[in-house]
Amino acid sequence: MNSSRLTAEINHLAHFSSHPAPAVTRVLFSPEDFAARTWLIDLATDAGFFIRSDAVGNLFITWLGSDPSLPAVATGSHIDAIPNAGKYDGVVGVLGALEAMRSLRESGHQPVRSIELIMFTAEEPTRFGIGCLGSRLLAGTTSPDQAHALRDPNGRSLDDLRPSSDPLSSVLLQPGHYSAFLELHIEQGPHLDASGIDIGIVEKIAAPAAFRLTLTGTGGHAGAVLMPDRHDAFLAAAEIALAVESSALNSSSPDTVGTVGKVEVRPGAINSIPNHALIEIDFRDTDLTTRDQAIALIQSTAEAICQRRGVSLLWQHINADPPATCAPHLVTLIESATTTLGYSQQRMISRAYHDSLFMARICPTCMIFIPCDKGYSHRPDEYSSPEAIAKGTLVLAESLRQLSAA
Amino acid sequence: MNSSRLTAEINHLAHFSSHPAPAVTRVLFSPEDFAARTWLIDLATDAGFFIRSDAVGNLFITWLGSDPSLPAVATGSHIDAIPNAGKYDGVVGVLGALEAMRSLRESGHQPVRSIELIMFTAEEPTRFGIGCLGSRLLAGTTSPDQAHALRDPNGRSLDDLRPSSDPLSSVLLQPGHYSAFLELHIEQGPHLDASGIDIGIVEKIAAPAAFRLTLTGTGGHAGAVLMPDRHDAFLAAAEIALAVESSALNSSSPDTVGTVGKVEVRPGAINSIPNHALIEIDFRDTDLTTRDQAIALIQSTAEAICQRRGVSLLWQHINADPPATCAPHLVTLIESATTTLGYSQQRMISRAYHDSLFMARICPTCMIFIPCDKGYSHRPDEYSSPEAIAKGTLVLAESLRQLSAA
Repeated sequence: MNSSRLTAEINHLAHFSSHPAPAVTRVLFSPEDFAARTWLIDLATDAGFFIRSDAVGNLFITWLGSDPSLPAVATGSHIDAIPNAGKYDGVVGVLGALEAMRSLRESGHQPVRSIELIMFTAEEPTRFGIGCLGSRLLAGTTSPDQAHALRDPNGRSLDDLRPSSDPLSSVLLQPGHYSAFLELHIEQGPHLDASGIDIGIVEKIAAPAAFRLTLTGTGGHAGAVLMPDRHDAFLAAAEIALAVESSALNSSSPDTVGTVGKVEVRPGAINSIPNHALIEIDFRDTDLTTRDQAIALIQSTAEAICQRRGVSLLWQHINADPPATCAPHLVTLIESATTTLGYSQQRMISRAYHDSLFMARICPTCMIFIPCDKGYSHRPDEYSSPEAIAKGTLVLAESLRQLSAA
Repeated sequence: MNSSRLTAEINHLAHFSSHPAPAVTRVLFSPEDFAARTWLIDLATDAGFFIRSDAVGNLFITWLGSDPSLPAVATGSHIDAIPNAGKYDGVVGVLGALEAMRSLRESGHQPVRSIELIMFTAEEPTRFGIGCLGSRLLAGTTSPDQAHALRDPNGRSLDDLRPSSDPLSSVLLQPGHYSAFLELHIEQGPHLDASGIDIGIVEKIAAPAAFRLTLTGTGGHAGAVLMPDRHDAFLAAAEIALAVESSALNSSSPDTVGTVGKVEVRPGAINSIPNHALIEIDFRDTDLTTRDQAIALIQSTAEAICQRRGVSLLWQHINADPPATCAPHLVTLIESATTTLGYSQQRMISRAYHDSLFMARICPTCMIFIPCDKGYSHRPDEYSSPEAIAKGTLVLAESLRQLSAA
């Protein structure tokens, strides 16, 4: 494989950003997202692969096998990026897979099954509040009707924005469509980097849940309304955010994490009591039971806080997905490929969730993790070395080679 | 006076808003603010008054007295409005004063001293984070250099935006420039409305202080970073906001109020740990000592919270002004005018602050309060009845008549 070509492409893709370097911000269907898609299509076309885009903007880059009637082997990830993120999350699994396909062909490999690289649309929840929108629609865990109902913060619908007039129902894939799905990804956690291990092979993906809480209190002038007369929506939100932290910290599972990453306060003037606050809670665990117990505790605590403060609470479920288990035969195959290549390896769980969580519903799935510096991700200093990326790409290539051979 | 003319003008002015009715949003030097200023200038010109605008956009509407060499009697307020506010805050003191001047002239009054209506620029802190910018510059409590350094949330300076190339130093007025300043205003508190009193005469204006806190933590992926490894900037902000509330609630003065009205969290994605939070604290009291004690407690608590959480804190002073005392001879004069008109009245303090706080530095000053429904202000359902406004306008007119007579 050509590591310097891949590094140059990763660096080039990072330029499609609405924030200046080193930050990368590439929000679904923003000008930067469309520019990046166009560049990727050019790259794949130049490499001689076939291109198809579905109704929600998932992009399929296909290397036709000698028997295209067999279910293809799929790989892929995403290229969208949350505000002020880095250049490796998702991107390594798209451009690395493209490099794997090119280098396999350059090495003389001729696949029997087609190899299909999927660039999933909207893995990040930035625009519509729901992550993995593309893979959810492929797997059928989100229905077209649910997708039609989505609105971005400016009230625009997915249908207003997506660059296709095909019905969203055409996105769904049938089980058996793919023989396997592999996703190469940076770990987004510190473990591989700290222990100096080259490759993580994911056995299980933690179960994420997300909630949107809309708090409505009573506004008024910050100077004029005395403290006992207040119903401050933001103070209720602040207490709830601390309850989320407390619930995660006190969970019996060390893998429980809870985050309030999105906060909006209105009217948003220094001299006005907040009458409105919106917070979004992300809560995850490798164990469904401890996760759902913790969430139930947060919900009852939030209700008590709001009742005490005279603030009304609208608790909306965004998503609550079960964990995914990776296909044991793929875990074994990747382990064997890693051993053949002479790299160190470890089985692990993925605390972050990925399009693999949904692909696992419709085909055997596994993930290949590579280390990233200090585990930093979703920030501008996210970093994986060219050497680490090359090792992951070679493990992916060797696995695709074997899976596409019959 | 012509109450229906005044009501129609208040309703018309409310149309200059960047949010749909009933909300009014009119941010300094926005298209809506400029449109409202233009409309007001037309109205004053049509009424035969003289117009002057200073370097920061304060507008002066002058009815020349028979002896223009005498210090004029001034009145006025503001027409800018925070996001999602109502149509009476400030506006009643501008359009009510214009109506007072028109009706005095229609009644045959000829002032000896000139009467000057001031529409103060940027009473609201929305754009530059500091309230009463126009009156601060008039009174010299903010220097031109401090004003040059102001930046709005998009990094634009006051000098980029103000519609004058005159130096800001030309805004300053000398003590003695005005013989008196009167401001008609809605109470923005529930007292007059609840007790059915027509007119509040302000003896003292509470002492406001404002601070901007910038919290910098460590970001990361919401799924991947375990709870004990986090340095979440928003959770530190949430604790500090609750400490502000607690400090105000536990103050020895019942008039102490503390508010966190502005909150920004970045990167602002549901699946990303906040690495940045900005909050703005508004803290007020009628007693300078209890206020400053409470602020010192909040500051030390905030520092302890941030140290414990491994979050860095930048504490910036926006403003901290002493309370103002209204001129006793003006309090007496307004009381007498109110009695003459047969309205009920009460002396009171202003918990909200106003341009009067700064005008009191350079001339004898007093405020006339009228009731507003339930004390609601800074919200779309802010309301004062035409009858209440007419009473306030007549008290203002009678006071201006007496003050301009010699």
